[in-house]
Amino acid sequence: MEPTRADARGNRARILEVAEEVFGRGGSAASTEEVARLAGVGIATVFRHYPTKRALLEAVLVKHFDRLCGQADDLAGSADPGRAFFGFFRHLVDDAAGKLAIIEAFTDAGGDARDKADHRPLDLRAAFGVLLARAQEAGAVRADARLEEVYALLVGVSRAAAHLHLDEQVRARALGIVFDGLACGEGAEKSRPEDA
Amino acid sequence: MEPTRADARGNRARILEVAEEVFGRGGSAASTEEVARLAGVGIATVFRHYPTKRALLEAVLVKHFDRLCGQADDLAGSADPGRAFFGFFRHLVDDAAGKLAIIEAFTDAGGDARDKADHRPLDLRAAFGVLLARAQEAGAVRADARLEEVYALLVGVSRAAAHLHLDEQVRARALGIVFDGLACGEGAEKSRPEDA
Repeated sequence: MEPTRADARGNRARILEVAEEVFGRGGSAASTEEVARLAGVGIATVFRHYPTKRALLEAVLVKHFDRLCGQADDLAGSADPGRAFFGFFRHLVDDAAGKLAIIEAFTDAGGDARDKADHRPLDLRAAFGVLLARAQEAGAVRADARLEEVYALLVGVSRAAAHLHLDEQVRARALGIVFDGLACGEGAEKSRPEDA
Repeated sequence: MEPTRADARGNRARILEVAEEVFGRGGSAASTEEVARLAGVGIATVFRHYPTKRALLEAVLVKHFDRLCGQADDLAGSADPGRAFFGFFRHLVDDAAGKLAIIEAFTDAGGDARDKADHRPLDLRAAFGVLLARAQEAGAVRADARLEEVYALLVGVSRAAAHLHLDEQVRARALGIVFDGLACGEGAEKSRPEDA
């Protein structure tokens, strides 16, 4: 039986989902063969959808960033902007090791910063900026903190967590210090984001 | 005239000093040839002292870390432990881009984490821990912060500064947030390390 168009769409979605998991775990060391095997399709099917490893990784990155941006957009309507901001900050740090592994694999496969996927990080930064601004308006984050340095702290804690293989407790305590710094400065009414 | 032993020692010191500057600026892209040229010696002289690029980079790293450890040791006797701790934290972040570039060059030249130079980062971490403990005893840093997470924040801000090419102002504001988080939590008496 010939594969139908619905089969092809299903395969494509499954390949992407499996690839996100495989490269998020293995980085550059992971292979397209492993993706095909775990998705239950032949390697030829993977290459029909994504002619190169780089094309596959770019699609994975786009999907990954689009999901994060969607989550940020949902949180932008939250009734508790402080909780939304600190919760999303923590979510991004928890997500970072996988995302950095996918980016490493993408770069090693010849992807570079001028590729299409690279607009997505800017979109995410902007969406994160909206949550920050709302948290500041609500008095949950000091008014004098700018997106530049808050984003730098997000990138910093994320990279330290991945590089030092921080366990969950240390990561949470490091975040707690940064959150206190964001909450306790001038312009913030609440003193600690305990409930984020 | 034959080179004397004092000439050889002078050459060695100059090579090391120039190498630290050249690789701290250029990372893996810098070359031993450039070091020889700027040190005013022949490439054969460099290789007589350091038979491989890796050996040269290891010596540069050892020297770099030893200097930082020496600075930390000097600060451990400071009459203002809060100022000493926050000042050294900032100094390490300012120093990070150069140090990371040298480490990158060392790794690309075949150096790895089990090499001799790698004990030095542990020595530095320990020296940083002494300054942290003294600042906590003095009430300048919250008592509940452990070295693990404070060191993770140091690594994080350092890597973010290097990766995002943060300018001095953004770096200072990011550090200000972390310092406030370290100072304003429970167990700290002073609220802001303004004078660090």
